[in-house]
Amino acid sequence: MRMRLNAGEIRHIRTLLLSHGQSGAAQSLVSLTAPELAELLLHLHPKELLALEPLVGTERLADAMANLDPAEAARLIVRFSRGSAADILEEMGPDDATDVVEELGQGVAEDILAEMEGADAAEIRELLNYPPDTAGGRMTPKFVSIPPEASVASALRFIRLQAAEAEMIYYTYVIDRADRLVGIVSLRDLVTAEPRQRIADIMRRQVIRLPASTDQEEAARVLMAHDFLALPVVDNVGRLVGVITADDVADVLQEEASEDIERLGGSEPLNEPYLTTSLLSLFRKRVPWLLALFLAGTYTSFVLQAFSGTLERTVALAFFIPLLIGTGGNVGSQIVTTVVRSLALGQLTVGDTWRVLSRELILSVGVGAVMAASMLVRAETMQVDRSIVLVVSLAALCIVLWSALLASTLPILLQRVRIDPAVASAPLIITLIDGSGLFLYLMLARLILGL
Amino acid sequence: MRMRLNAGEIRHIRTLLLSHGQSGAAQSLVSLTAPELAELLLHLHPKELLALEPLVGTERLADAMANLDPAEAARLIVRFSRGSAADILEEMGPDDATDVVEELGQGVAEDILAEMEGADAAEIRELLNYPPDTAGGRMTPKFVSIPPEASVASALRFIRLQAAEAEMIYYTYVIDRADRLVGIVSLRDLVTAEPRQRIADIMRRQVIRLPASTDQEEAARVLMAHDFLALPVVDNVGRLVGVITADDVADVLQEEASEDIERLGGSEPLNEPYLTTSLLSLFRKRVPWLLALFLAGTYTSFVLQAFSGTLERTVALAFFIPLLIGTGGNVGSQIVTTVVRSLALGQLTVGDTWRVLSRELILSVGVGAVMAASMLVRAETMQVDRSIVLVVSLAALCIVLWSALLASTLPILLQRVRIDPAVASAPLIITLIDGSGLFLYLMLARLILGL
Repeated sequence: MRMRLNAGEIRHIRTLLLSHGQSGAAQSLVSLTAPELAELLLHLHPKELLALEPLVGTERLADAMANLDPAEAARLIVRFSRGSAADILEEMGPDDATDVVEELGQGVAEDILAEMEGADAAEIRELLNYPPDTAGGRMTPKFVSIPPEASVASALRFIRLQAAEAEMIYYTYVIDRADRLVGIVSLRDLVTAEPRQRIADIMRRQVIRLPASTDQEEAARVLMAHDFLALPVVDNVGRLVGVITADDVADVLQEEASEDIERLGGSEPLNEPYLTTSLLSLFRKRVPWLLALFLAGTYTSFVLQAFSGTLERTVALAFFIPLLIGTGGNVGSQIVTTVVRSLALGQLTVGDTWRVLSRELILSVGVGAVMAASMLVRAETMQVDRSIVLVVSLAALCIVLWSALLASTLPILLQRVRIDPAVASAPLIITLIDGSGLFLYLMLARLILGL
Repeated sequence: MRMRLNAGEIRHIRTLLLSHGQSGAAQSLVSLTAPELAELLLHLHPKELLALEPLVGTERLADAMANLDPAEAARLIVRFSRGSAADILEEMGPDDATDVVEELGQGVAEDILAEMEGADAAEIRELLNYPPDTAGGRMTPKFVSIPPEASVASALRFIRLQAAEAEMIYYTYVIDRADRLVGIVSLRDLVTAEPRQRIADIMRRQVIRLPASTDQEEAARVLMAHDFLALPVVDNVGRLVGVITADDVADVLQEEASEDIERLGGSEPLNEPYLTTSLLSLFRKRVPWLLALFLAGTYTSFVLQAFSGTLERTVALAFFIPLLIGTGGNVGSQIVTTVVRSLALGQLTVGDTWRVLSRELILSVGVGAVMAASMLVRAETMQVDRSIVLVVSLAALCIVLWSALLASTLPILLQRVRIDPAVASAPLIITLIDGSGLFLYLMLARLILGL
């Protein structure tokens, strides 16, 4: 049940690995689960890695690597000889192996594929044709298929033979002579059916199938909605080319949630674990967004400069600037986060624009009143002029409403023009509110104070 | 493959439901998948719901409701007669049914349970004992178990009998006379074994098991790491009490990601879909955080008031306030988001504090230099005094460093004291940076400008 080795255990194993005899290391290694072994691999120096290989064997190495992020696995696999790397990839599921190969340099990938058994290499080359974030890129070609004329008994015999090779034996797909998917039987159906029955008589004919080009997130959503263990993937003429399984989907969901979270935080997604992402790569993911937000934010200086006369005469107005634009930003951040997540979960679609907007505007009248009252109390305690108190409270109400309008519509508009709505991050909304909120505030001040 | 009905289709079915004859409605309803039917249920008026019941039957209603959020399903189920509600719950998996019962009022829940078949009601009452966010609360008691002395042939016969009832027949659990879990065989193992072999000879004895009190997120992580279809759940004396399945885990992961996202956006998690959350409930989830952030932000006014002399003499300093604190906030938001997500995925632990801090501080020197340069260019173009340009650039560098320090340590510290690190939201970091960043900026101004 423990998922991570602690630093002491890792140090211990590393010492044993380079000591003579190695029987101690072999003993410590035998009890490690695949995720633990994966964790260990990340901490080994190249020399230790090579010492470890004969002790655990390529099959366990393959299991461990399937637990790693493909980018990490690719970095590790090139440290082995080309022959060992080929053996490890052969032991991995072809879908996982393809993800790793995609992360290798072109030349290295070709070298390793050339060392692999022909059939295994061919499977990977086939899978490399599909973009990695589609159903085709996520599927495994290791499924079991039978013709509709087969009997239940012969199907069970056939599955028995395939069990060692196939990744998913709980569903058997029924295909016609042109490889087109015509039905499905679950192992559950087979064990409860009479042995002499024909597959055609017990199979389900209404099979939900995914075109290979389906976006992986959409594929995950369909599989989850139906609580299936796997979904068949078909090419553009309806031939069964692979299956996408529930454990792949869990990975997809985690990745997609991580991407949305990173974008909502105002940065490009990392695509690999934080600690193994290089500082240079972090820099590249973050700085473009910081500069874009900076540029978008520069107009706040224009606004303030334009109103510098007003500020010079009543410097007290400046006291409330961070609090006002901060409140506007917070309201916007709450709304944008909820809307982006609901879009990602499919609970909202672009058709709901008006519903979201009207809900958020009604809500903002209440929220705005609360924030205006808070501002009033705050301004009163600072003993500024009564007219300034009025300006500040009114500005709070206006900024909350404006922020709600912006934050509830922007993500849906982005979705409509097919940009990831998570780009409408908290920092973006906050930056947009900063300048426009200031303008609202200082205009109100000019009008009410007659400056 | 389509997941949502469009408004036109829903309107069409609703019209048919209340028309005479209803054969049209029955026809449109027959082709709906469970998720589509679920979607439809949410749009029906009570009268239409009752008209729909005999047309689709309790079994399909149960399938559809299992696709809904439990809170939504609970709201729907009380609209039926107590007897029908009991029938629907009987048809649902006991784990899903329990989630729904948990959302019902005490009295209503008792009424419906009393109407249910004794065995089904007992299962739900048993599951109600476990907190909903634990392995016990997520598990189903509908598993298949056999003694180790059984033969493969008799196990297969037994599974055949259980197939209609059990939720998970792909794993069969081996238990001793005291119901303690001693092994596991997969249906795959069974179909490939010789019929006369004993279960004890083919079962795997090293079974990863979860105590019923395990947090659901931890359970999800273990199941995902091993790519299992299900994990057995045991009570505190090692007796097998249920299994938690992969499709439950996908739900858990989505829920937990949603919770983190909501918190990161500066709001309490909604726990149900946005469009069915009442405005009052949204208000209650959001306003406490807004007020807390407002209170935390009030010290910005103190800082500005304290430096009002400085500002009055050089009002140009005010021009850069939003841009400076905005940049600090953006940097903090990027870091906090990445750290919180990495903690949630288990890629970071509290032991990594120093590693994260040192990485982020090194990175911030680079990021700070870029932002200081940008600030310098910006200030130059506004034709303010050279000394102000210097102050503003230096302040940008200091604020970036300070923000990185705060944002990289706060989530890990929260985790250490067992508070959800996602509480360290973008708005919280931004609010903390606002005041302290201002103080840094105006202190620098006083020192350098000699004000």
